[in-house]
Amino acid sequence: MSITVWQALEAGAPLVPGTRPRLEPAADELVLEVLHCGLCHSDLSMLDNHWGMSSYPLVPGHEVVGRVVEVGPGVNPALIGELRGLGWICGSCSHCPQCLGGTGNLCASLEATIVGRQGGFASHVTARQDWTIPLPEGMDPAAAGPLFCGGITVFAPLVDEAVSPTAHVAVIGIGGLGHMALQFARAWGCEVTALTTNLAKAEEARGFGAHHVQALDQLGELPGRFDLVINTVNQALPWADVMGSLAPRGRLHQLGAALDPIQVGAFDLIMARRSITGSPTSSPASLLKMVDFCVRHNIRPAVEHLPMDRINEAIARLRQGDVRYRFVLDAI
Amino acid sequence: MSITVWQALEAGAPLVPGTRPRLEPAADELVLEVLHCGLCHSDLSMLDNHWGMSSYPLVPGHEVVGRVVEVGPGVNPALIGELRGLGWICGSCSHCPQCLGGTGNLCASLEATIVGRQGGFASHVTARQDWTIPLPEGMDPAAAGPLFCGGITVFAPLVDEAVSPTAHVAVIGIGGLGHMALQFARAWGCEVTALTTNLAKAEEARGFGAHHVQALDQLGELPGRFDLVINTVNQALPWADVMGSLAPRGRLHQLGAALDPIQVGAFDLIMARRSITGSPTSSPASLLKMVDFCVRHNIRPAVEHLPMDRINEAIARLRQGDVRYRFVLDAI
Repeated sequence: MSITVWQALEAGAPLVPGTRPRLEPAADELVLEVLHCGLCHSDLSMLDNHWGMSSYPLVPGHEVVGRVVEVGPGVNPALIGELRGLGWICGSCSHCPQCLGGTGNLCASLEATIVGRQGGFASHVTARQDWTIPLPEGMDPAAAGPLFCGGITVFAPLVDEAVSPTAHVAVIGIGGLGHMALQFARAWGCEVTALTTNLAKAEEARGFGAHHVQALDQLGELPGRFDLVINTVNQALPWADVMGSLAPRGRLHQLGAALDPIQVGAFDLIMARRSITGSPTSSPASLLKMVDFCVRHNIRPAVEHLPMDRINEAIARLRQGDVRYRFVLDAI
Repeated sequence: MSITVWQALEAGAPLVPGTRPRLEPAADELVLEVLHCGLCHSDLSMLDNHWGMSSYPLVPGHEVVGRVVEVGPGVNPALIGELRGLGWICGSCSHCPQCLGGTGNLCASLEATIVGRQGGFASHVTARQDWTIPLPEGMDPAAAGPLFCGGITVFAPLVDEAVSPTAHVAVIGIGGLGHMALQFARAWGCEVTALTTNLAKAEEARGFGAHHVQALDQLGELPGRFDLVINTVNQALPWADVMGSLAPRGRLHQLGAALDPIQVGAFDLIMARRSITGSPTSSPASLLKMVDFCVRHNIRPAVEHLPMDRINEAIARLRQGDVRYRFVLDAI
């Protein structure tokens, strides 16, 4: 039986429906029947070939919740029927030092769900077993998709760097990533400040867990304030103010894929032992911790649902920033 | 009895001898009779008021080895007679979260030996007890001075960040700091690469412990090579090559006080979970670990001795980079 996909035939083109041959799961792979798929800014970057690694026809979508309908060699058939989530990474080599060390998201030969592969805006998608995460009891499948890319992206700077719950944490940007970062940091036990250029979102930011909401352009007035600043925006920032807002041993964690270099004064690093980190999603082990943590703390992405055949409407609105806070496309 | 000092009367001026009233140690302070004092690049920066925080007459010198000759209130008189080392920091508040947490080098009200105080190119100098480090048995007092500023500066990125001995470490710059960094990293158990613009130093770098010596301008040919790059130079570098030379989870530790911002691509941080850190010397606890480690591994600065009354000759030669690898001025 063939499958259906939503594909762009060239860079920037709208998605059009198509059919493709039935998916054959390779060894260690399984096939998910897609139930829901979130729409991420990275889908737009890939649609537009901003990163020079797109191939067309392109089927985007990498925040998948689906049901296991078939398994490849080496995968236990008992998984069939399980609900699982799939994010940016759908496979890694399993054998390199990074994979063996539990940081398979840094594998040099990892496979990304929508890079040279067919993504989640489709009836079915394949992935390596370990990169699909079983949804725990109590997690709403309809809202869970964005956790597997946007969510893990902002959970990583907490879980993978062993942030202390005593930390004072700031989140720059209250959007698709930021609104989840606020929830995670609050549940983590931290003091949470949202930094935004749009104070109209202040009440919602507090609803997501921010103790404080501050205008980003007043960051210069908060010297030495934060142990961790999670930056979710991809624009140039007043870097000296950002670094200056860090406490001794404070850390800027960069998630926004800014194209212009970050400008960092050596003294801003040296004098207070500050640091800058970045990360690309995270590992299967951290994904498992994330979904467990989400259920325990009732963390869930704020999503707007549209049926899959309105994907182009969702794309157009995301391009305009008109979404609070994440689109999820539902199978039709 | 008065003391003698070597002081600059204005920015950039040569040091001239002078006398000052006898030092009165405050509570928790002690007085060191200076036996040896290293000459550090920071002394030149302070002499020239590059950082805008010099006051004149200025007595530089902050790599002191001396003998305790007097103690202030609260200090055990049994310390009199001990040989102790003193570096950039001579006091901190003891009561703030940083001091209480063991990172007093990040204390907001720390006192620096040559900032608003009289430094070590003198017959005597005062400092808080805990910022003077007892020289362990087996340490040569005549060569130890540079450990207390230059040495701890390059030991900090190993000890304070808990670097694994399995790490592949590169040191940029084979100078006053770099030649000690090579020794520390080698004794730490790491694989050590010296990166230099001056391959004429290659043999000496190997003598200090480098397994490999590479031209700095060929760093672009070593992608993903290092877990830690310790940068001791304060000039602009090909930052994309430096970041690219880091392995997954690799870290650039910046020690050179470059005045132009470091330029870091967000992708270079994000894609391989790389990071950038910096640090200002370290804490008394780490200083104690350093001197113990030095004795166990026979680590010692390579020094050239001059008598204190030839301090201006040492300054002139250091300005020209004509020293291998550190001057130590000896009491006369």
